[in-house]
Amino acid sequence: MSQPTREVKVAIAGATGTVGQRFICLLAAHPYFRIASLNASPRSAGKAYKDVVRWKQSVPIPKLVLDMVVKTCEVDQFGDVDIVFSGLDSDVAGDVEEALRKAEYAVFSNAGNFRRDPLVPLVVPLVNPSHFAMIPHQKKTLGLEKGFIITNANCSTTGLAIPFHALEKAFGPLETVVVTTMQAISGAGYPGVPSLDILDNVVPYIGKEEEKIEWELAKILGGLSDDLTEFDMHSKHPMKVSAACNRVPVLDGHLECASVRFARRPPPSPQQVKDALRSFYCEVQKLGCPSAPQQAIVVHDAPDRPQPRLDRYHQEGACVHVGRVRECPVFDVKFAVLSNNVSIGAATSSIINAEYAVAKNIV
Amino acid sequence: MSQPTREVKVAIAGATGTVGQRFICLLAAHPYFRIASLNASPRSAGKAYKDVVRWKQSVPIPKLVLDMVVKTCEVDQFGDVDIVFSGLDSDVAGDVEEALRKAEYAVFSNAGNFRRDPLVPLVVPLVNPSHFAMIPHQKKTLGLEKGFIITNANCSTTGLAIPFHALEKAFGPLETVVVTTMQAISGAGYPGVPSLDILDNVVPYIGKEEEKIEWELAKILGGLSDDLTEFDMHSKHPMKVSAACNRVPVLDGHLECASVRFARRPPPSPQQVKDALRSFYCEVQKLGCPSAPQQAIVVHDAPDRPQPRLDRYHQEGACVHVGRVRECPVFDVKFAVLSNNVSIGAATSSIINAEYAVAKNIV
Amino acid sequence: MSQPTREVKVAIAGATGTVGQRFICLLAAHPYFRIASLNASPRSAGKAYKDVVRWKQSVPIPKLVLDMVVKTCEVDQFGDVDIVFSGLDSDVAGDVEEALRKAEYAVFSNAGNFRRDPLVPLVVPLVNPSHFAMIPHQKKTLGLEKGFIITNANCSTTGLAIPFHALEKAFGPLETVVVTTMQAISGAGYPGVPSLDILDNVVPYIGKEEEKIEWELAKILGGLSDDLTEFDMHSKHPMKVSAACNRVPVLDGHLECASVRFARRPPPSPQQVKDALRSFYCEVQKLGCPSAPQQAIVVHDAPDRPQPRLDRYHQEGACVHVGRVRECPVFDVKFAVLSNNVSIGAATSSIINAEYAVAKNIV
Amino acid sequence: MSQPTREVKVAIAGATGTVGQRFICLLAAHPYFRIASLNASPRSAGKAYKDVVRWKQSVPIPKLVLDMVVKTCEVDQFGDVDIVFSGLDSDVAGDVEEALRKAEYAVFSNAGNFRRDPLVPLVVPLVNPSHFAMIPHQKKTLGLEKGFIITNANCSTTGLAIPFHALEKAFGPLETVVVTTMQAISGAGYPGVPSLDILDNVVPYIGKEEEKIEWELAKILGGLSDDLTEFDMHSKHPMKVSAACNRVPVLDGHLECASVRFARRPPPSPQQVKDALRSFYCEVQKLGCPSAPQQAIVVHDAPDRPQPRLDRYHQEGACVHVGRVRECPVFDVKFAVLSNNVSIGAATSSIINAEYAVAKNIV
Repeated sequence: MSQPTREVKVAIAGATGTVGQRFICLLAAHPYFRIASLNASPRSAGKAYKDVVRWKQSVPIPKLVLDMVVKTCEVDQFGDVDIVFSGLDSDVAGDVEEALRKAEYAVFSNAGNFRRDPLVPLVVPLVNPSHFAMIPHQKKTLGLEKGFIITNANCSTTGLAIPFHALEKAFGPLETVVVTTMQAISGAGYPGVPSLDILDNVVPYIGKEEEKIEWELAKILGGLSDDLTEFDMHSKHPMKVSAACNRVPVLDGHLECASVRFARRPPPSPQQVKDALRSFYCEVQKLGCPSAPQQAIVVHDAPDRPQPRLDRYHQEGACVHVGRVRECPVFDVKFAVLSNNVSIGAATSSIINAEYAVAKNIV
Repeated sequence: MSQPTREVKVAIAGATGTVGQRFICLLAAHPYFRIASLNASPRSAGKAYKDVVRWKQSVPIPKLVLDMVVKTCEVDQFGDVDIVFSGLDSDVAGDVEEALRKAEYAVFSNAGNFRRDPLVPLVVPLVNPSHFAMIPHQKKTLGLEKGFIITNANCSTTGLAIPFHALEKAFGPLETVVVTTMQAISGAGYPGVPSLDILDNVVPYIGKEEEKIEWELAKILGGLSDDLTEFDMHSKHPMKVSAACNRVPVLDGHLECASVRFARRPPPSPQQVKDALRSFYCEVQKLGCPSAPQQAIVVHDAPDRPQPRLDRYHQEGACVHVGRVRECPVFDVKFAVLSNNVSIGAATSSIINAEYAVAKNIV
Repeated sequence: MSQPTREVKVAIAGATGTVGQRFICLLAAHPYFRIASLNASPRSAGKAYKDVVRWKQSVPIPKLVLDMVVKTCEVDQFGDVDIVFSGLDSDVAGDVEEALRKAEYAVFSNAGNFRRDPLVPLVVPLVNPSHFAMIPHQKKTLGLEKGFIITNANCSTTGLAIPFHALEKAFGPLETVVVTTMQAISGAGYPGVPSLDILDNVVPYIGKEEEKIEWELAKILGGLSDDLTEFDMHSKHPMKVSAACNRVPVLDGHLECASVRFARRPPPSPQQVKDALRSFYCEVQKLGCPSAPQQAIVVHDAPDRPQPRLDRYHQEGACVHVGRVRECPVFDVKFAVLSNNVSIGAATSSIINAEYAVAKNIV
Repeated sequence: MSQPTREVKVAIAGATGTVGQRFICLLAAHPYFRIASLNASPRSAGKAYKDVVRWKQSVPIPKLVLDMVVKTCEVDQFGDVDIVFSGLDSDVAGDVEEALRKAEYAVFSNAGNFRRDPLVPLVVPLVNPSHFAMIPHQKKTLGLEKGFIITNANCSTTGLAIPFHALEKAFGPLETVVVTTMQAISGAGYPGVPSLDILDNVVPYIGKEEEKIEWELAKILGGLSDDLTEFDMHSKHPMKVSAACNRVPVLDGHLECASVRFARRPPPSPQQVKDALRSFYCEVQKLGCPSAPQQAIVVHDAPDRPQPRLDRYHQEGACVHVGRVRECPVFDVKFAVLSNNVSIGAATSSIINAEYAVAKNIV
């Protein structure tokens, strides 16, 4: 990619929250995005960022935002930015993002509110940036010139979508997926999971998470209608997905055990699966998006990898890790996937989506 | 059961290890088993138990064993006990248990060495005490009068075998099982899992564990040949099992997410499954074995149960817990199972097996 | 103690909270206290206990309260109980407890609101039940016949007060105390400490905790004025106390490292200190209070004890554990103390206080 | 510092161990040290590093050592390196390091064997690089030309020595120190602490650790005799130190609560202490040693900092963090110190020591 010749001004909505803090860490060192506006609740507005944030990252607050004055999320408070990254909680994200779009901002949202919207692409940047092709239809339908909303996927979906997409690219459609997740506490935000609930414990339930995985995978892995106005929801090759979601006492990094069956008979061997995952190379990598990982899928041969603590920060958490690729006595192949839920599973995906949009002159 | 009119003297082989410590805790308060011999490695022999054990239980060492002098595991050191409970490590369990059997002891082993032996029953007491019917054949084959070996199952298998058996009893054979385990660190013994490997982490691998689940379930859930000389390995209705095993930072209690498909069409509904599990009542309960749980399978309606920390010590850990019974988009039904790996998953099962043998005059 | 010939009816205010749940567990099996009223917020009132509580104990809800209808904390909702145990949060405890006292109830409070009140005894039952002698003055001052308030101490104070009292009883006044605490998350209630704050972490701060330890010790370890109307705050032998309080990722059990200097020269040796702690026997034990521990202070010789996980549930958590008694290069002696913050550090102390009051015909 | 104009070749003894792995991570990116030799046990010798190491770092193995062939720790296996960094276990470190010194290597050891040797400087590089002045005496005594041994301090000592030195520099000698440590599991190496011992637990004991703190502080904070042949052990102003050491379930980062009394009356105020710590600037910083931190002591004003998880990786773990500076009711001032035990508490200190030696032409 030829990098943009200009800086691109961005705002962060929900800048004081957990996801907002991640956006700040990632954008503070970005080659061309420049944080021009920090927006949060009225409670924080008018004060220096460092005085209102409860900073929970293991790196200090980047110097450049320490004294930035926080503004509200009223639509007139975002100034002349080109892009708004939204790390808002879902209880307010719907209204704010809708207003921002209407005000002709390009909104890259990490919130879940618009993921099921038939006009809004649900984009895992290593998988389906092709869905950006729906944006003209979104704008046209709403009578907008520049404003649109793109969402990234739920964190536990993202980790699965990347290797599944690589497999479908190499071997054709997946027919069946059974997956059990072991999800980090950071996925629940802050304060999130009470320590009394999770220390020395596993909670075999995360509200609505299983439904999200089962539904989102179809939207992400599916294509678009020929006229670029509809998501086909993987309907040409219906895919059955069953998920069981668990919360485990891990800070960052979702580990997921998946068994899959391919439509194709005979199915690929475990070795072929490993080769295909290792050689997966995708559009945002080709374009040179600066936040894209060098290696999208890291395949481990050691029998006990990937592990959240050892692998989650590799490549700044922008890749996924796959290990234990082996035959499944019930389906074709089973394996373990690790993804960093706060990086590629959240803010990093939004940022790569925006980098793609810049590269493609969509913003 | 009419309880035995006499005390039954028992020995504990491997008395200083983790499993041995559990045997001691459970047997110290037993209504009729009396600990008559503590056997361990030559390193401990000749010394008072309290001086050689690295006690790791959350209750103090029972008074009655504090000053018992530990003996070796040489076969002449077990005296006139009727039963030997073996909590030996697998590297020594094979030879010691074989020698004990040859010396006409009834050996109830928690070790894995004889689980695949075609003469040795692999008994989960809430499931297949009927396999004790193989003992005459075992004795006869080896030319023994009283000596035999019974093993209990691997801890992660036990937690599955109980609800699966209840389901097969109610609805006929299971055809397919996909299961992901999240297993406690106590399952690896002491010192076992280094803390650097598991704090803030999940390890998606436990050596040979998946093979054990896949193989042991068939032996346990299967029946015997008509002449009581062979295990049928569930071969009348072959069952495909796929397991993915993980170690999680939990002290006690294995949580397992299972999806199952029944042979029977239409399959039972989630509600029927719950009813069948709740009403499951088994032979060792009918016989009044003192260590058997009152309720073998506790079914939870709360969406976020069972949880290791909250449920593992219920009924002294002698039952299993099932929750989140719901439809599976791929198979018929999926649910979460919790079992206390150090109780029903280990020593408690051995003891109930022995209680069954006493009740049936097998020892 | 001759146990009371009648049942004593009790109410639990704040019955749905963490402390209230502990009261229920302990009182459900009590020999003579009978739970006659569960009182909580208006939100819970009118519904069955089992339907409003978020039960977080590792034992199931006692059967006898499952269907009890919860009432509000209005003073007319407590009926004819003799005693109210208060597990209320401090934001409401002040008003409710004051109203209950005025309505002539005997209130045994675990809340902190009245701990510094010059009329209200702050009683660690293994230490200063003698402070009950202030109750006539409390009643008289307020013009009450039966109503009074007794509080127990903050959890981290309680664990220190017991061994310090034993030492003062044996060797005379303590002059200097430096203590560092490592406190369990359950001390913060539920939801309490967010898991993101404490997993793989220690937080070197607990709001107001250090001041509580430094102040409460003087009230508890001090005596009463001769006319039984004032607390002398240990003023005859002023004691300097410095505390540093930390939150650690432990579920239950506060561990505290203390160094002490005695007024007496030469000071007792570590062995004398151990002997004095071991032989400590106190009033509530002599009276046979059913919830008092058999051994008030368990002294460990093993160099690495006490440990929260291994020792906290010993004697139902009603004792304290002391270990590592050794010379201090700066003061006289140093040692580690463990106390179960949810038992002797909270509800158990309130209950023993009430047992004492019953035994002494104070209620 | 003018950086050296040439690369300096270094060997890592104990390259496969935990400390060795840290040396590799830090040296792989070093501006002038070049890893020329990896030495370990005979078991690993002759094989590629990647095939023998059990890598436990959260970053991948640096590419440049992946295929380096490991050699033994025989003295003829170190080739022409200038410096040997020793991350050996203490059971072998003594002999190997002694042999290396005799063979005229400059040995920078992280092991404890020579810390109490009257010829060997015990150097915390931010505190007492002045002790390098003892090296001529060490060489002369042993008849060596270039060979010498320097050790860094025990990890828990290092974290204290830095702020204590800053305070003594500003306010004169410390008279009394009482400290309680809460130490990370990585301080015990690998496999180190069994997870069953530390999950949901604190262990109030670390073998010999308290004696190390109490003794090492005197050697480090003291000076040299005028003829540069003896350590004065802080004897001009004897300092009483009392330490209580605990292991907590934290991966990296030792937190220590210290109370101190100055000789000087009146003592400095908490604010003066904070100012002095903040403005502390030391020799290795002035010299521009590349691994020295920019800010040696980070002082926190937030009441709940420092925390291991949030602060340990700041400045690559090369600094210490001080927070909660406040008056002590018993001594003068108390505060909490955090140091990264695997960085400044171990390998980083060795490397800065070596950088100092290079800058001063000592190697």
